Amino acid sequence: MKINAWAAQEQRGRLEPFSYDLSTPPAGNDCVIKVKACGICRSDIHMLDNDWQLSSYPLVPGHEVVGEVLEVGEAVSHLRPGDRVGVGWQRAACMACSRCLAGDENLCDQNEALIVKGRGGFADHLAVDARFAFKLPDGLQTRSAGPLLCGGITVYSALHHAGMTSGGRIGVIGVGGLGHLAVLFASRLGNRVTVFTTSADKAELAGQLGADEAIVVPRGAAPPAPRQKLDLLLNTVPYPLDWAAYLEHLQPDGTLCFVAAPAEPLSVSIFPLLVRRQRIMGSPIGGRAMIDRMLRAADRFGVAPLVETFPLAQVNEALQRVRDNRVRYRAVLEV
Amino acid sequence: MKINAWAAQEQRGRLEPFSYDLSTPPAGNDCVIKVKACGICRSDIHMLDNDWQLSSYPLVPGHEVVGEVLEVGEAVSHLRPGDRVGVGWQRAACMACSRCLAGDENLCDQNEALIVKGRGGFADHLAVDARFAFKLPDGLQTRSAGPLLCGGITVYSALHHAGMTSGGRIGVIGVGGLGHLAVLFASRLGNRVTVFTTSADKAELAGQLGADEAIVVPRGAAPPAPRQKLDLLLNTVPYPLDWAAYLEHLQPDGTLCFVAAPAEPLSVSIFPLLVRRQRIMGSPIGGRAMIDRMLRAADRFGVAPLVETFPLAQVNEALQRVRDNRVRYRAVLEV
Repeated sequence: MKINAWAAQEQRGRLEPFSYDLSTPPAGNDCVIKVKACGICRSDIHMLDNDWQLSSYPLVPGHEVVGEVLEVGEAVSHLRPGDRVGVGWQRAACMACSRCLAGDENLCDQNEALIVKGRGGFADHLAVDARFAFKLPDGLQTRSAGPLLCGGITVYSALHHAGMTSGGRIGVIGVGGLGHLAVLFASRLGNRVTVFTTSADKAELAGQLGADEAIVVPRGAAPPAPRQKLDLLLNTVPYPLDWAAYLEHLQPDGTLCFVAAPAEPLSVSIFPLLVRRQRIMGSPIGGRAMIDRMLRAADRFGVAPLVETFPLAQVNEALQRVRDNRVRYRAVLEV
Repeated sequence: MKINAWAAQEQRGRLEPFSYDLSTPPAGNDCVIKVKACGICRSDIHMLDNDWQLSSYPLVPGHEVVGEVLEVGEAVSHLRPGDRVGVGWQRAACMACSRCLAGDENLCDQNEALIVKGRGGFADHLAVDARFAFKLPDGLQTRSAGPLLCGGITVYSALHHAGMTSGGRIGVIGVGGLGHLAVLFASRLGNRVTVFTTSADKAELAGQLGADEAIVVPRGAAPPAPRQKLDLLLNTVPYPLDWAAYLEHLQPDGTLCFVAAPAEPLSVSIFPLLVRRQRIMGSPIGGRAMIDRMLRAADRFGVAPLVETFPLAQVNEALQRVRDNRVRYRAVLEV
């Protein structure tokens, strides 16, 4: 079987049509998916640019894949041809270490990323380990579900591990691809949401998404206090901010959680953390159980990423819009 | 009733006999305790020296009190005259805010410390709100139980909130008053314990207390790797250390928890925290439910602070030994 994809032949290269062969039908745990849509994530651009020194070329990006199962290997019992599935950042883990056993396959030392060890979803088909393909609830739309598989699970898992339940006061720094999904999940799951953004436009949008309070913070300024101190503050922007000031806006027992990593080290005083029993943490994607739960929560509470769609053939134009930060709020390629 | 205590009349002053009157018998939630023993904690010295700008003189230190209930107010139902009780750092909270309702009275905005708002346990009697006096299990010794009420609850609550259960791999930095109690609790509750200390003597002692591994780290050096990466690392020393190196020795999903606060800000890279889902937190004493549970755990698993005892009249000599870091590992005054 021949797979028609789009690939970069070199670092920062323009994507061009690229085809490769699947020599055998799927065996064991593998499956082949007919791609219907694929989100574009910042990590695709980091991989295209080899920012993490992990890239090999030709590189087929795409790790927010929605498609239909075509064929499955003999060991696959949870998927059948015709099922609609999603695939995210992760393609493999050892499945035997203590973290895999705990459902934290994303923290496995041997975890493999879809587009680091293989080819991604900017293509008409994708071959992948079916253990990392997730059946999509019927209520999720094919055109907008893709970003849930990477951006969505990243904020959902982080909010969960930082202690979100319902009835909480949750702050979100940044209203972009990740931030808008955090506002949707946190508000629809019954929390009071405060956003911090540099943009008046995004402050207004945050209100439409469900935020109760939107605070515009000029670049370089200290964040003004929210009306209520926060139980949890999720940072979704890769810039250095006044973290000590943000920690002041947290309740005792509160958590500041990073899903985006500013390059500059975090520098904070320990004494205030100690007397207030506060936490600082980071969180990457999520394990399989968490992805499954996130998809059901998105279905149940109507959490749909706001997307701009592009035909797959316009992948270079779409990538440029992502590079230029012009997409509101997540780009999706339709195949 | 006249209470005979020892007090400093001024900042850094030598303690001298000091008596004061209780004009009325205890009413409402109050009780009067006949003091039998009282631990000496570093915080007593910080208060004597007015390091936190919270002190008022005459100052009667002592917040690791063990004694016998003499009289109770009419609202006290959980204690009776003759009961053996302990009193720690906290003397009051609002009892109505969300944190008090959750059993985290120690995080209440209106929490009051025994020796900040009143007189402490370096005395023959103590009058205190009985809601902050805890009945001691019979298995705990009067001479050594005092340090559990402040040092003990501090490490126990921190270990709990940082995720300790059993079967974990727990690191403890420092083997002093707090550290030796952390080794005792963590090892007796079924965890593998690694200590990091600057002293070969303390490394040996840690083994006797139950540590599985003791790593001597010369001052200023990076900590060598433990044989197994740690799930939880508790810092009990107030010095700046190579935190980034310690974080390297933590498992994914691991927590670095501070119960002592170095004055220097913590500076760490965010990216490694994010990819490993690690946490940095601080933790102060514990709420009432946690104190109750800690006392039962100490009784059940034989966790007894290692103490040096002194008659109350030798309080100045005992304080000097604490100032000189010569006590192994907690000083207790016997009344």
